[in-house]
Amino acid sequence: MDLMALRPLAEKLFEDVRALSFDGVGVTRESYGRGESATAEYLRDFARAEGLEAAPDRAANLVFRLQDDLPRAPDAPVAWTGSHIDSVPQGGNFDGLAGVVAGLLCLVARQREGRATGLPLEVLAFRGEESAWFGKAYMGSGALFGKIGEADLALRQRTTGETMAECMRKAGADVEAIRAQQPLFDASRVKAYIELHIEQGPVMVARELPLAVVSGIRGNVRHNRIVCTGDAQHSGVVPRWLRHDAMFAVADLVMRIDEHWRVLLERGTDLVVTTGIVQTDAAEHSISRIPGRVSFSLEARSKSTDTLEAFYQLVRAECAAIGRERGVGFEFDRRLLSEPATMDARLCGVLATACGKLDVPFDVIPSGAGHDASLFANAGIPSGMLFVRNQNGSHNPREAMDMADFMLGAQALSDAFEQLE
Amino acid sequence: MDLMALRPLAEKLFEDVRALSFDGVGVTRESYGRGESATAEYLRDFARAEGLEAAPDRAANLVFRLQDDLPRAPDAPVAWTGSHIDSVPQGGNFDGLAGVVAGLLCLVARQREGRATGLPLEVLAFRGEESAWFGKAYMGSGALFGKIGEADLALRQRTTGETMAECMRKAGADVEAIRAQQPLFDASRVKAYIELHIEQGPVMVARELPLAVVSGIRGNVRHNRIVCTGDAQHSGVVPRWLRHDAMFAVADLVMRIDEHWRVLLERGTDLVVTTGIVQTDAAEHSISRIPGRVSFSLEARSKSTDTLEAFYQLVRAECAAIGRERGVGFEFDRRLLSEPATMDARLCGVLATACGKLDVPFDVIPSGAGHDASLFANAGIPSGMLFVRNQNGSHNPREAMDMADFMLGAQALSDAFEQLE
Repeated sequence: MDLMALRPLAEKLFEDVRALSFDGVGVTRESYGRGESATAEYLRDFARAEGLEAAPDRAANLVFRLQDDLPRAPDAPVAWTGSHIDSVPQGGNFDGLAGVVAGLLCLVARQREGRATGLPLEVLAFRGEESAWFGKAYMGSGALFGKIGEADLALRQRTTGETMAECMRKAGADVEAIRAQQPLFDASRVKAYIELHIEQGPVMVARELPLAVVSGIRGNVRHNRIVCTGDAQHSGVVPRWLRHDAMFAVADLVMRIDEHWRVLLERGTDLVVTTGIVQTDAAEHSISRIPGRVSFSLEARSKSTDTLEAFYQLVRAECAAIGRERGVGFEFDRRLLSEPATMDARLCGVLATACGKLDVPFDVIPSGAGHDASLFANAGIPSGMLFVRNQNGSHNPREAMDMADFMLGAQALSDAFEQLE
Repeated sequence: MDLMALRPLAEKLFEDVRALSFDGVGVTRESYGRGESATAEYLRDFARAEGLEAAPDRAANLVFRLQDDLPRAPDAPVAWTGSHIDSVPQGGNFDGLAGVVAGLLCLVARQREGRATGLPLEVLAFRGEESAWFGKAYMGSGALFGKIGEADLALRQRTTGETMAECMRKAGADVEAIRAQQPLFDASRVKAYIELHIEQGPVMVARELPLAVVSGIRGNVRHNRIVCTGDAQHSGVVPRWLRHDAMFAVADLVMRIDEHWRVLLERGTDLVVTTGIVQTDAAEHSISRIPGRVSFSLEARSKSTDTLEAFYQLVRAECAAIGRERGVGFEFDRRLLSEPATMDARLCGVLATACGKLDVPFDVIPSGAGHDASLFANAGIPSGMLFVRNQNGSHNPREAMDMADFMLGAQALSDAFEQLE
């Protein structure tokens, strides 16, 4: 099935949704709020005009499918695709929306050409994927899996102050069922979930890859706050051998981390490490004082739980060694772990085959950012992801996906679904 | 001349001054303020009761000498000793005061024993050495050298808000002469300035040295603020080879500095290096964001101007190298340089001989902290310093000088002055 003729349609969809959610700088599609709902209504109306079925599920996500696929048994197997329709404030137009538009193009092609091989396809437009609004990610997909609880529903929207429960109810979600943490769909009938998404990092641009098959979604291990304690003294009077300089100790740790990271990468390990926040103690620091207290955050991400654990233990061992060598102490707050998600090997193969058929360069890469697909994968549903090249990162208005790349992605997605039995 | 019998007198002087400046935690002797003036009045009355002359100079410092040295020609050569009588807020009792008390003991011994070899001795009790009160150090000695100007006189006391000029005037200083930056004394008649001071660092305690001869007073080169700029991006999506992590770059710099420092120390170079303030940019930093901006301070201290300059150039070269390797930039604010002061070789020898005669371990070490003596040395007056061991650093109430160590220092000081022609 050839989707290339649908490019003008794709351009119109992106343009119309951008226009209805433009905020003067980028696009703003608040989770369970105005921009997201306007997008949902626009897409619903478009789909119905195309003769597709479009209806909300119990978590107020929008589900699209071919009408002529009906009637089906309630437990008839299906393939799912989709992504999210919300955005961060002043965000980019393609983050999330690209996967929904790609899914809709697959349905429109099937609708217009009147034939389809493979499993019946349903397209999901998830609400509430971005953590920017309520401090919680994957709300729409999480609700489907019974993973949104009382504490989440009480979270308040960053600007309006309304609770997540109120916003979900206004959007039409079954908040009582969500609060009860019931699974809201029959996961056993979903034989595959494949999500197309723009890449949010710079790898594909740097490596000139229009498409990439995602091998897994990185998990992470984090400490929000580690405190290194040394001895704050007059900078002029304490020689090197008598210093307990907390900043030199943290710099030492960061460089040891950097070196381990470099070596692990050479061995093919998937890993990124970040110390996003580093601060000498403003209550006591001064230019002429040896830092006695430095606080810092630490985050390691990998698609391998084993790598996260091994690297974490390496960091702890280095902290202990630096503590001995430099006479400082490290105190750790609660360790936070998010499990990585592994994409289904068969689906990766199907996606790779589909990319290969298009005769464009592609590779298999991990996703550093989180996606709705991680919930599907960790729930045992065979899941895959396809990345489309995108310039300038994401979560900013400078996102720049080339439409030619996008159409290649949509075509590969469609071809992959034709292979799924 | 044997000072050891004066130990009870020294103890009484320290106790009385502590009592009149005790603030409930430590001692507070405000520069040109209450505690400092009370100390000056107490010492003046004590000296006069001992039959010594005690009078303020034009900068309101107190000058003590033997009455029977008079009459002298106004340009008759003298030797000076002394230190400062102010303190930081909640400071220790010995920082500064020890040098004044030691000088007074020398005079009292000469007065009581009625004989003296060497140059006539004058003891200076400087006001306003601590920068804690007006943000400016060496006010009392600086005024003597014409180094306190209009801008300094307009500085305000940290708690009362009064200007330095007002406070100096209340203390009896000739503010108009100070403002005109006239030298307030005839430097040519001062053949030597020797200052006894507690060590403010931990070296002598660690090395079990009751006394030390100071080879020089370190100067420093500083940047209050260097900004390293990289590229702030989502921590999950940018691999190591595409990162421009400002924090890893700064950690790299700190570790290169540490390594250069270690190597230079092994070659016998005098150097300490401190990055007292390090901050990721609070406006953009987050746990899951690669730091795009890190600001930090840098200070190197050495008794050698050449070392400061060479080390500084090394740091700049490393910044350039890290900039190339890690794709970051370093922006430097104004470079600040304080020249080191070298103690007079002959006076160091005289002091070393005096220490040696006492049969106690001593060594020649640099002073990391600044002292009034640096102004004398840099004005071309042969200057020396003698350190007395002191626990727990200084600028805090936990200073702990042993009186036995102090008496050794006072004795060495007295013996040294007997050798000066």
